[in-house]
Amino acid sequence: MKVLIAIDSFKGSISSIDGSKAISLGIKDVDPDIEIVTLPLADGGEGTVEALVQATEGQFVKREVIGPLHEKVDAVYGILGDKKTAVIEVAAACGLPLVPSNKRNPFVTTTYGVGELICDAIEKGCRDFVIGLGGSATNDAGVGMLQALGFKFLNQYNEEIGWGGKELQNIHKIDVADIHPELQACTFKVACDVNNPLYGPTGAAYIFGPQKGATAEMIKELDQGLENFAQIVLDELGMDIHNIAGAGAAGGLGAAFAGFLHASLQSGIQLILDLIAMEEKIQGADFVITGEGRLDGQTSMGKAPLGVAQLAHKHHIPVIALAGGISEDTSTLNKLGITSYFSIMNAPMSLEEAMDSKITFDNLRLTTKQLFRLIRAVR
Amino acid sequence: MKVLIAIDSFKGSISSIDGSKAISLGIKDVDPDIEIVTLPLADGGEGTVEALVQATEGQFVKREVIGPLHEKVDAVYGILGDKKTAVIEVAAACGLPLVPSNKRNPFVTTTYGVGELICDAIEKGCRDFVIGLGGSATNDAGVGMLQALGFKFLNQYNEEIGWGGKELQNIHKIDVADIHPELQACTFKVACDVNNPLYGPTGAAYIFGPQKGATAEMIKELDQGLENFAQIVLDELGMDIHNIAGAGAAGGLGAAFAGFLHASLQSGIQLILDLIAMEEKIQGADFVITGEGRLDGQTSMGKAPLGVAQLAHKHHIPVIALAGGISEDTSTLNKLGITSYFSIMNAPMSLEEAMDSKITFDNLRLTTKQLFRLIRAVR
Repeated sequence: MKVLIAIDSFKGSISSIDGSKAISLGIKDVDPDIEIVTLPLADGGEGTVEALVQATEGQFVKREVIGPLHEKVDAVYGILGDKKTAVIEVAAACGLPLVPSNKRNPFVTTTYGVGELICDAIEKGCRDFVIGLGGSATNDAGVGMLQALGFKFLNQYNEEIGWGGKELQNIHKIDVADIHPELQACTFKVACDVNNPLYGPTGAAYIFGPQKGATAEMIKELDQGLENFAQIVLDELGMDIHNIAGAGAAGGLGAAFAGFLHASLQSGIQLILDLIAMEEKIQGADFVITGEGRLDGQTSMGKAPLGVAQLAHKHHIPVIALAGGISEDTSTLNKLGITSYFSIMNAPMSLEEAMDSKITFDNLRLTTKQLFRLIRAVR
Repeated sequence: MKVLIAIDSFKGSISSIDGSKAISLGIKDVDPDIEIVTLPLADGGEGTVEALVQATEGQFVKREVIGPLHEKVDAVYGILGDKKTAVIEVAAACGLPLVPSNKRNPFVTTTYGVGELICDAIEKGCRDFVIGLGGSATNDAGVGMLQALGFKFLNQYNEEIGWGGKELQNIHKIDVADIHPELQACTFKVACDVNNPLYGPTGAAYIFGPQKGATAEMIKELDQGLENFAQIVLDELGMDIHNIAGAGAAGGLGAAFAGFLHASLQSGIQLILDLIAMEEKIQGADFVITGEGRLDGQTSMGKAPLGVAQLAHKHHIPVIALAGGISEDTSTLNKLGITSYFSIMNAPMSLEEAMDSKITFDNLRLTTKQLFRLIRAVR
């Protein structure tokens, strides 16, 4: 019997790697001879670098960059096993966790460090990039990142603008003369699960500004800045970066990637599944086990376990999904390809207890063991 | 496919009957053609009358009797489908729930009502009795019950003693001249899961007195009363009722049943499984589902689900056990015959939420559905 384990992290509780270990032990408890293949999973958000580095036997790279508040921070990204693909979570260089709540201010915060990470990876020989958007503390339309890559944004006095979202409204001209010479040879795939345009009522500032510390007054100004930037890009470079689905992701980083770096914006899980060649590896498995911290019926579309389930379903392989918690409205999960789903809770307990990593590990192992005892009895 | 459902009640949450309904619906959600046999289960404690009446298509009988505090109470017992076996939980006539906490006093409380229920069932044609001990508020050694059945307990002035544990020390003589004439024709099977002798440090008063409201001083006196009673019975009737395993159950009711009514004291679950002919009915099933509110590794010996599991195991039928909560130390359950066990919790929640009957019903149904989807996929 061959089992493929491909779980997302149980966020805040256990990593994909450790959770997979627990499941693997639960299977071995029943039959040590079962062949187990583990593919750590991610959805383009937190944990993507770790999952892809592990899945491809790549390496982590730590680099000092300019952080969101213009201070130095240590950021980690990954180089995959092929040694030419870099995987970067933008949050590592400009994420909300790097900014204390009382200092959140998208007028100031910059994506400059993201550009520095790209430069570093180029230097190390990478030409293909996988980017996880999400969790950014910025609203600078990726201008900071582009500045680090050599783009120049000039004000009406032909001076370079500074860092942060407040500067967008001063952009008057764009100078591409000094951009990084290797950029042309680079490809970018961006994991992006929102469809917002760059500006306007459903744009970056109005939808994501508040969680980044913007007041109503600031949001108005940020939105005008985004619109001005889009207009200049259209006038100067002939590109419409506003109307791209996902342009407004990560404070407009989506627009910068799509427009300036010719990135394709894709569903995160689809991107990851392709990268780790999930469909190829799933074939020949007798069972697939997937899972994540919380299985949610309504918002499940596009999430990692569902992506795995659909691939398995396509190849007629039974899929078991394990989760810490299961929402009430999960009636759709079976229809979407999950054979069976189970919570690993073994007793009434608080959320805090349930998220304890040791309890999660033990419950994953025990639930898996009981399921494989049943499977063994039935086969 | 044929499935036998035999679950105990999930105490304080859902009855065996309703829980079985939920499981049955979960199976039907997957395949309406699966044949389902339901046997409500009990362990001799609370719910035994209901389970046996349902399992045998018997009837409930309500009868006004003398309650533990000498007041009138309505007590319910069952007559099984054979119309000659009565099933009585002694708690219905002398149980702790009938006595408010501040009135708990084993000097006073009597088992008289239990005897009245037996008389009533004899009148209705019953000659075989199944008795569930447990939950009594009394420490009268079953003397009250025996009084109702015509036994006379006389003090040194040749007067009949009154009701309650305090009277035991006054017993001087026993008069059996006027006992119920049909008692000789009756058989009693008593479900009893404790092994305590009648008196002494591990006897009824010392072990069970405190939970019935006895102070340290009272316990001493009650224990002396039990010893006096045992001595008189030995002297007068030549019976040793002290040293019977279980004599101390239900405040000494065990001794009265074993000694005066020639009852066999048996493990509750074994008694029930025999009565509902579980072993016969289990044969031919492809799966057995059992369960209870809490699956506990250490104290599981003798409990209902384990009894079912062992019978199923003997006939090589896979057994799934479902529970609200599972204790940490459950590693023995698999060894004892349970193929797989699962908690039905679907998310972190409080004990109070977990015991909500609607939540329990829904979770039983959902968990069963997911398990049978897996079974269908594997078979």
